[in-house]
Amino acid sequence: MCGLPMDPLALTFTVQARRGHARLGLLTTPHGAVRTPAFVAVGTQAAVKGVTPEAVAGAGTQVLFANTYHLYLRPGAELVARHGGLHRFMNWSGPILTDSGGFQVFSLGASIEHGVGKVASIFPGEAPARRTPGGDSMVRIREDGVRFKSHIDGSLHTFSPEVSIAVQRALGADMVLAFDECTSPLHDEAYTRTSMHRTHRWAERSLAAFEASTPQHGYPQALYGVVQGGAFRELREQSATTIGAMPFDGIAIGGNLGATLQDMYAVLDWTVPLLPHERPRHLLGIGDVPSILEAVERGVDTFDCVTPTRNARNGAAFVRRNDHGERQPGFRINLRNARFADDLGPLEAGCDCATCRSYSRAYVRHLFKANEQLAHQLVTVHNLRFMARLMEDVRTSLAEDRFAELKADLLGR
Amino acid sequence: MCGLPMDPLALTFTVQARRGHARLGLLTTPHGAVRTPAFVAVGTQAAVKGVTPEAVAGAGTQVLFANTYHLYLRPGAELVARHGGLHRFMNWSGPILTDSGGFQVFSLGASIEHGVGKVASIFPGEAPARRTPGGDSMVRIREDGVRFKSHIDGSLHTFSPEVSIAVQRALGADMVLAFDECTSPLHDEAYTRTSMHRTHRWAERSLAAFEASTPQHGYPQALYGVVQGGAFRELREQSATTIGAMPFDGIAIGGNLGATLQDMYAVLDWTVPLLPHERPRHLLGIGDVPSILEAVERGVDTFDCVTPTRNARNGAAFVRRNDHGERQPGFRINLRNARFADDLGPLEAGCDCATCRSYSRAYVRHLFKANEQLAHQLVTVHNLRFMARLMEDVRTSLAEDRFAELKADLLGR
Repeated sequence: MCGLPMDPLALTFTVQARRGHARLGLLTTPHGAVRTPAFVAVGTQAAVKGVTPEAVAGAGTQVLFANTYHLYLRPGAELVARHGGLHRFMNWSGPILTDSGGFQVFSLGASIEHGVGKVASIFPGEAPARRTPGGDSMVRIREDGVRFKSHIDGSLHTFSPEVSIAVQRALGADMVLAFDECTSPLHDEAYTRTSMHRTHRWAERSLAAFEASTPQHGYPQALYGVVQGGAFRELREQSATTIGAMPFDGIAIGGNLGATLQDMYAVLDWTVPLLPHERPRHLLGIGDVPSILEAVERGVDTFDCVTPTRNARNGAAFVRRNDHGERQPGFRINLRNARFADDLGPLEAGCDCATCRSYSRAYVRHLFKANEQLAHQLVTVHNLRFMARLMEDVRTSLAEDRFAELKADLLGR
Repeated sequence: MCGLPMDPLALTFTVQARRGHARLGLLTTPHGAVRTPAFVAVGTQAAVKGVTPEAVAGAGTQVLFANTYHLYLRPGAELVARHGGLHRFMNWSGPILTDSGGFQVFSLGASIEHGVGKVASIFPGEAPARRTPGGDSMVRIREDGVRFKSHIDGSLHTFSPEVSIAVQRALGADMVLAFDECTSPLHDEAYTRTSMHRTHRWAERSLAAFEASTPQHGYPQALYGVVQGGAFRELREQSATTIGAMPFDGIAIGGNLGATLQDMYAVLDWTVPLLPHERPRHLLGIGDVPSILEAVERGVDTFDCVTPTRNARNGAAFVRRNDHGERQPGFRINLRNARFADDLGPLEAGCDCATCRSYSRAYVRHLFKANEQLAHQLVTVHNLRFMARLMEDVRTSLAEDRFAELKADLLGR
């Protein structure tokens, strides 16, 4: 609790080169710099699943993402604060980004009862409620905030812009997010519009709460606003203009991005040109290779996604090409496959990661078949390195003005 | 397949100091030296559960143990051989010891149908068979070898001294074991005697098979004999004398060590003085602090056990003393316990391991409560470091001739 005043240098962002909408940049935070475009590895519960921070950094990861909702419920933001914040709690000395908690309040807090991607059933009116099969209301949205049940123990909690900022102040990430409602493809335009306006009011309240509070751990924090508006052009443009006009340090693009990759690219085409050019842009929850390349081309600077870590635990190792030098559909191979049983080669030819330098596909497959957790570690390290190398190549191609060639080489178009 | 001749320098053992029966020693292997007394970490399936070899070495572990039975069944010794042996397969550059497969043939191969420690039901006669509840014979012991069903897929296999040596040649550990039958507390003296004599004949055959074969991976291997005889004094003495008289590079003490720690100490009192003084002695499958100290005092040099790794995965962190400086019963604390929820201290005060240097009990407890695999890694590293520090202190106390003080300090007697 050092009670520092707001520091305008919590975050600086320098665009070093522009190629159409794409930019090569440098983001500086109190915990070091991030060369952009960059991939942000996800450590939901203050841990990147299965790997130590040393391994995460060793793979070339520059920045981590942690989830406010999860950490608020368990172990609690106060406990993290008593450790001096997330960096010390989880032993990560680099930059950290936390979300606002909104996404999980709406998805996990709602118990995901209908199995759709981000949120579940929709009720008309100002205060939609989601109900369990038994009829319990799980999430109730009001102007002041959201009341929800914990997905862990069913306990009742309320999140609001003020609560989200207070929790994120306690967690102490370098970059924090304004509280927003994340709408889903099941929401119609009318609901999405209502929600977007509320998110804009919550953005103002998040800014006010942020400015009225002070960093708790001896270094300043930066606040990002979140653009919503679903897959509706008018709403996205309105949200980009509105959020972009507020004094946020950076802008995140969230919510429903449509049903297809083409829809997502359209959302970015509508949104990004309306955002302030001097501030960094983060695309929430997107991490596949084609989406990253298309989004970089459209001006996005940073990305977070669980794909490298989640895929690793399922046995999927990321590769650019197959063993015949051809593009590999989905950019992954399944190491559990019998065809790797006797394969003495590395996970990906030419990869410089700690796993590919020392282990064979046959060994890693053996670990999966034998239910050895080490398998998860080894493939996670590779997949994180894959993402870091991808972004390194993206940055180099932007510096050398040959991004289109890299994209064509990776995507074949 | 370099076809080297048998190398008499596969293993050297130098006793640097004797304190009663206890000795301070140095064991050298083609993959480096081991300062003894030493604890050998177990990597059953060619992986120390949950941790990388770098983390295992970083904790001060000098030597690993892998299980021939498991690796023979999965992934197969030939595959390991094609990698150039276990060291390259699992990325461990230090010394490795493999067992003969006998222990698991009798325990896992028998499907552990009666739930006793090491082996199961006993049938009279020369060819005891163990039967499943359905009546299938699971293990059949004959003079030539043992026929058993895989615990993985029920497939039928035969192990013999010749097979065991051939498999261990392919795996390529620095130290390998003669094929033996591991008897259990359920075996009577008559059966244990019969089995012991067969184990002695198998020892001769193991030696012959070892001498008739050549190392496959460009460095020599050393062969240990295994003393059996259950908890029967006459048999243990006979086995120690018989195995000790054979030209093994080292001696392992295996089988049923009785029902209590006192029984085990008696077995060591009968056995160890009859073993050749110039050769190293390994006690199979024992790793608790009191047993190690009592066995070191009785002249044992090396130990292997799953306790540090298995306990870690259950949340038990090894500590010498509690937070009040008193001896901790069982030398462990359960990090899942609610009393650690807000504990900002290291797992063990004063520990220099990678985990204690960077993480709090509260953080590790959070990982366990949140089902994060990283919890297993962090506690495994600590527990391996605990064992390494214990053995370092044992060696220092032997060098300085104050082992009795160390033992009294640790055990309180």
